[in-house]
Amino acid sequence: MAPITIRNVKTILTAPQGINLVVVKIETSEPGLYGLGCATFTQRYLAVAVAIDEYLKPFLVGKDVNRIEDIWQSAMVSSYWRNGPVLNNALSGVDMALWDIKGKIARMPLYELFGGKCREAAAVYRHADGRDVQELEQSVAGFKEEGYRYIRCQMGGYGGKHNHLHTPEGALPGAYYDPQAYARSIPRMLEHIRNCFGFELELLHDVHERLAPIDAVRLAKSLEPYRLFFLEDVLAPEHMDYFHMIRSQCSTPLAMGELFVHPMEWTPLIANRLIDYIRVHISAIGGITPARKLAALCEAFGVRTAWHGPGDVSPIGHAANVHLDVSSHNFGVQEWTPLGEELQTVFPGCPQVKNGYVYPNDAPGLGIELDEKLAAKFPCTNKLPEWTLARIPDGTSVRP
Amino acid sequence: MAPITIRNVKTILTAPQGINLVVVKIETSEPGLYGLGCATFTQRYLAVAVAIDEYLKPFLVGKDVNRIEDIWQSAMVSSYWRNGPVLNNALSGVDMALWDIKGKIARMPLYELFGGKCREAAAVYRHADGRDVQELEQSVAGFKEEGYRYIRCQMGGYGGKHNHLHTPEGALPGAYYDPQAYARSIPRMLEHIRNCFGFELELLHDVHERLAPIDAVRLAKSLEPYRLFFLEDVLAPEHMDYFHMIRSQCSTPLAMGELFVHPMEWTPLIANRLIDYIRVHISAIGGITPARKLAALCEAFGVRTAWHGPGDVSPIGHAANVHLDVSSHNFGVQEWTPLGEELQTVFPGCPQVKNGYVYPNDAPGLGIELDEKLAAKFPCTNKLPEWTLARIPDGTSVRP
Amino acid sequence: MAPITIRNVKTILTAPQGINLVVVKIETSEPGLYGLGCATFTQRYLAVAVAIDEYLKPFLVGKDVNRIEDIWQSAMVSSYWRNGPVLNNALSGVDMALWDIKGKIARMPLYELFGGKCREAAAVYRHADGRDVQELEQSVAGFKEEGYRYIRCQMGGYGGKHNHLHTPEGALPGAYYDPQAYARSIPRMLEHIRNCFGFELELLHDVHERLAPIDAVRLAKSLEPYRLFFLEDVLAPEHMDYFHMIRSQCSTPLAMGELFVHPMEWTPLIANRLIDYIRVHISAIGGITPARKLAALCEAFGVRTAWHGPGDVSPIGHAANVHLDVSSHNFGVQEWTPLGEELQTVFPGCPQVKNGYVYPNDAPGLGIELDEKLAAKFPCTNKLPEWTLARIPDGTSVRP
Amino acid sequence: MAPITIRNVKTILTAPQGINLVVVKIETSEPGLYGLGCATFTQRYLAVAVAIDEYLKPFLVGKDVNRIEDIWQSAMVSSYWRNGPVLNNALSGVDMALWDIKGKIARMPLYELFGGKCREAAAVYRHADGRDVQELEQSVAGFKEEGYRYIRCQMGGYGGKHNHLHTPEGALPGAYYDPQAYARSIPRMLEHIRNCFGFELELLHDVHERLAPIDAVRLAKSLEPYRLFFLEDVLAPEHMDYFHMIRSQCSTPLAMGELFVHPMEWTPLIANRLIDYIRVHISAIGGITPARKLAALCEAFGVRTAWHGPGDVSPIGHAANVHLDVSSHNFGVQEWTPLGEELQTVFPGCPQVKNGYVYPNDAPGLGIELDEKLAAKFPCTNKLPEWTLARIPDGTSVRP
Repeated sequence: MAPITIRNVKTILTAPQGINLVVVKIETSEPGLYGLGCATFTQRYLAVAVAIDEYLKPFLVGKDVNRIEDIWQSAMVSSYWRNGPVLNNALSGVDMALWDIKGKIARMPLYELFGGKCREAAAVYRHADGRDVQELEQSVAGFKEEGYRYIRCQMGGYGGKHNHLHTPEGALPGAYYDPQAYARSIPRMLEHIRNCFGFELELLHDVHERLAPIDAVRLAKSLEPYRLFFLEDVLAPEHMDYFHMIRSQCSTPLAMGELFVHPMEWTPLIANRLIDYIRVHISAIGGITPARKLAALCEAFGVRTAWHGPGDVSPIGHAANVHLDVSSHNFGVQEWTPLGEELQTVFPGCPQVKNGYVYPNDAPGLGIELDEKLAAKFPCTNKLPEWTLARIPDGTSVRP
Repeated sequence: MAPITIRNVKTILTAPQGINLVVVKIETSEPGLYGLGCATFTQRYLAVAVAIDEYLKPFLVGKDVNRIEDIWQSAMVSSYWRNGPVLNNALSGVDMALWDIKGKIARMPLYELFGGKCREAAAVYRHADGRDVQELEQSVAGFKEEGYRYIRCQMGGYGGKHNHLHTPEGALPGAYYDPQAYARSIPRMLEHIRNCFGFELELLHDVHERLAPIDAVRLAKSLEPYRLFFLEDVLAPEHMDYFHMIRSQCSTPLAMGELFVHPMEWTPLIANRLIDYIRVHISAIGGITPARKLAALCEAFGVRTAWHGPGDVSPIGHAANVHLDVSSHNFGVQEWTPLGEELQTVFPGCPQVKNGYVYPNDAPGLGIELDEKLAAKFPCTNKLPEWTLARIPDGTSVRP
Repeated sequence: MAPITIRNVKTILTAPQGINLVVVKIETSEPGLYGLGCATFTQRYLAVAVAIDEYLKPFLVGKDVNRIEDIWQSAMVSSYWRNGPVLNNALSGVDMALWDIKGKIARMPLYELFGGKCREAAAVYRHADGRDVQELEQSVAGFKEEGYRYIRCQMGGYGGKHNHLHTPEGALPGAYYDPQAYARSIPRMLEHIRNCFGFELELLHDVHERLAPIDAVRLAKSLEPYRLFFLEDVLAPEHMDYFHMIRSQCSTPLAMGELFVHPMEWTPLIANRLIDYIRVHISAIGGITPARKLAALCEAFGVRTAWHGPGDVSPIGHAANVHLDVSSHNFGVQEWTPLGEELQTVFPGCPQVKNGYVYPNDAPGLGIELDEKLAAKFPCTNKLPEWTLARIPDGTSVRP
Repeated sequence: MAPITIRNVKTILTAPQGINLVVVKIETSEPGLYGLGCATFTQRYLAVAVAIDEYLKPFLVGKDVNRIEDIWQSAMVSSYWRNGPVLNNALSGVDMALWDIKGKIARMPLYELFGGKCREAAAVYRHADGRDVQELEQSVAGFKEEGYRYIRCQMGGYGGKHNHLHTPEGALPGAYYDPQAYARSIPRMLEHIRNCFGFELELLHDVHERLAPIDAVRLAKSLEPYRLFFLEDVLAPEHMDYFHMIRSQCSTPLAMGELFVHPMEWTPLIANRLIDYIRVHISAIGGITPARKLAALCEAFGVRTAWHGPGDVSPIGHAANVHLDVSSHNFGVQEWTPLGEELQTVFPGCPQVKNGYVYPNDAPGLGIELDEKLAAKFPCTNKLPEWTLARIPDGTSVRP
């Protein structure tokens, strides 16, 4: 019997909630059989689209859809330079679409191919924010009432918003914040929240790489009394080696990785037990194939998964997260962002949240559809992001 | 729709080639749907059978066949003490049978569930032996002629056979050998074979843990000029930390692990890049579920797989090896032992070797059947093994 | 004079207190001379019995009873795969029985063969438990009154019992507990007990591997103010490398090892001074022969012994513990579980506790008899254990 | 005085020698003042063009041309995900163009801004190849005669060309080679060349990541007698940690880095003194700004520079290399590929080679022009590269 082959590869760009999403659709030699994958890199979606349309598509057409591992490995090196955003995202779209097809051929939801559910649903965490502790308190209370038990507490956006910044004359425009003021504010913020809600809620906090390394060490240490579930992205990806210092000084659980794109970022961190939760953006590392291997790597070292799940993951990417969540023994927690009505209409079959847990659906493959006509009504737009242009008081641009 | 559940678990003992094999058959609530797994531990097959029949069977009956990961994890800890032979073998039989069922439900050979073939077939190595270098030379020549390119060279059995052993009066009976004579003989043996066949054949050698640690270091170093493909089992599992010493002194590629039963044996070796090939006996570590994770762990560190494939692996276990071989990117080589006519009749569907490569078949699941009536004609027998009772000249029992 | 040889090896299964015990009886060529050993592995007792009856018995019959070291070494490797539960337990039964015989031949209690008493008796610790701090307080007070100075404080069983667990719909059955709620409760529990009883009692706590690694680090650190005598089993045997992290952050004394079955678990821990008390289950590591060597290893590194002594150790095993306790210079403390009337009747000669100390008797060998007829009145039963099937709130099976 | 600002950013695609080149032209508010930079990533040139045109251009227009450091830092993080090919190449084009402008404003060649020449010209190495040692010998002799003293010796292309590859039936198409045959051939190749030319020529060899890690260790060690100037790219970027092993076993000088895109690849290698020459592709790491810092980092650890200089670097990129070469104290050697007549016509001002040394010109900035009309006559074409699709004999795709 002739193998099922790739007949066409399409990139679909859509922004139902105003966030640019990149979807790969792989059509096969089998009428009606196709797969969908998430290749989203909101900030550079057009570059991803070109990588797929101009390079991966001609590479892929005619290949056997079943040979996912070989396609992943050979596509990865077909550009010679590798291990970076854009190319990893493009490959992720292809990889997820091939797994979607594999699941459909097997007539199984993907979690079954991954060994079956080892939990019924995945606990999620939500993002609470406020301009001050009172607003944050209200936000936390709301989530608690809705049944969430894991809540990330932020104040004034990443790094905080600080008035009275002391900047020199003529400093360039940008998203200013004061890292020292921010670092001082977080212990107080958590103290307030613990005073209000006690220690039964699991609290998280995301530093979003807003600190210099030694300040990150100091913050992690100062948060020990508040018993965080985890502290997120406390260091920039260029400074992973400071985790040794944090580990030698405190027991605050650490989550890291949404910016990771290269195995040299995560392998040493995990093998040296320097973090507790891996939080990569699955489309930024190349899709389900590397994510499953990464989960297995983590399991060997007692590290748990907390896949990145913000608004710039498409529902297809969220579904991939959830299929991995329910079938990976070393799952920790899942970041969750609500999927609005438009998103759910454009992408029928979205994972559903009930009482603080997200449930995958049981359709074959990833279980998500895409209404292409509807998707076309939400065109992407190429805006310059502002939040990435962070500056500290003296005007220095920082790596967010 | 009600899930498919486990209706019955049977242990089948058979020895078509005179080697005791243990097979697990899981029957399901779905008429005609069953799976087969290899639980073979030849030297203690009755203990494995009891572990399955008396403990795993009541644990399993009624459980959902799809939830392999959960079953593996919960069965593993149901005994509290864990990570050892007997219990790992029993669990392996169950795990492989569940994967066999999963493949049948998906109507796919298992390699498809594992990501698809990333090579068409798996290169195998064969075991050449002879009482002296001349006999060995003939054995090697024979394999070469049959198209094999990877040949393991041994002389006089593991540790060699040595006349004129200088033993004290009254030494106890046992399988005597002289570790120093053995260690001296191997460089000369390889020199002879290299002189006969040049460097185009890939040569391997198995120390079978027959040396004291420092002698293992010295042997590994002394073999550098002969460019082994790998040196096998150079240290006993209790002495893994000597690999640091070998690594600091020579570049002989190292394979290790057929005796491994515990993650603390393999995880540090791999994460510290102390070996080049992992060679575990898949049924001794608990089956396909841990083997796939182990392969992923190895890939992160540049270590390749060379799953144990001797006569005391059933054809079902060989099939599991080969499904992993063709779908794991970091496959290295596969140990192979010919499956005789009786074996192939009792186990229809055995992997086939052509021109030095072994090919899986394309039937769903593991693709191997078991003729239970025929199997019953080859009953197991409980003999005391002799080769495990190795002694050195002064009469000391050694860990083989 | 002809050596005394092994004439028969019998396995005796009995459960006088409802806990399955496995005893090995070795009968010798000398009329009336026999030995008893503990091979108990409650959760898999039938597999141990087969390992003894079908494999060790034929291996042993006819061998010289005096050659314990040679028998231990050669039996250990006779199965090729080794270093795991079942086989270690079986060997332990044989090993202890041979030492019992050796003592009887010497007409000496075993502690004499081990160098003689270096203390008169062994301080024991008892297990206090309660559903809440008040109940626990009463339990502690009771032990204190009875003269015990070392008390292990637990609340609601291992991991605690927690109401209002927040589980997803459809979660599988199991022994649910909440690791975070548990971890939060222990400092408060110890604070209460210290407030009630001051610092003169020695308090212990057993985590029973109920936490993720980083939470184990955090707990150990948070308990520093309560001055534990030791913190027990804070990590699962697969994650021993996290002890480095605990050691770098706190000075809480650490005990580890009841699940150990392999030298690669304990040798690096001890040689790197990562624990303070070794707590192996002697029958799980293969008996008195390896336990004495392990005590010697510990002494070299300043580590003390605290042999596992729960209800699933037979009185013969308890006696082995106590003979080692009184003769090992680096003895720390002995876990103790009261031996009920039935047990003491079935096993005449049990060690006796007075005023917080356990005393061996002075009969030759281990000093324990077995009334086989009475033993037969307490048959073992093969129940599925429930406490080993621990699950955390989202339904994940955990390694207890 | 108003600052000079960026008025326009253009991407120019051209392939005068059949290799796709990407050039960035930044036009300024100052009439006639513009800069040129190399953004070449031949295998994904269209994705780079989109990254520049759609993302960097709107980010840049209106910004002060003088603030190179601020532009580099803020552009790098404007995409949030960073440190990969495509985006680094795009940024490199911008960065070099800004430095070109800076030099023109200063009316100085760039080497002057970098501290001035500390050598008059840069020694280059050339690439000698042949199907066998005889052909290679002729190639080496030719280069020697032309005055080159550093010659890279290769045989049959990267990994070699091997007849009689033993592949399984049905193996997928690809660029097949045999890593073991290749590894065996290199010591013999170098022995021949040393026999012909003695030890006065500096010989180099490029492994091009064609070996498994342990085979890379073995090769490096086996080449010690041939006194290489350096061994190039002996490991894939995912396996940098194996350099420890090479370093502990041999003193072969090591060059690494043409595939590097992330600081976590190079910083630990350099800080741990694991390589001797850094060989990054300057446009792959983001241009002159990071390259100068990298040179400074290397100087601190005794590592020298050997910037990547193949055909897929534009003459603008070559000029950047050479300006750094003559002004960096820790320069080692420069890879050189002849620039053909078309290239030199399209890009007037190319660096010139005389007697084994390359000389920058003394025009302001990088000193290279671009004839845009002529460039348009050599359009780029989007071919699938074949050499990146390397496979070993069993059909496995490898990371070249």
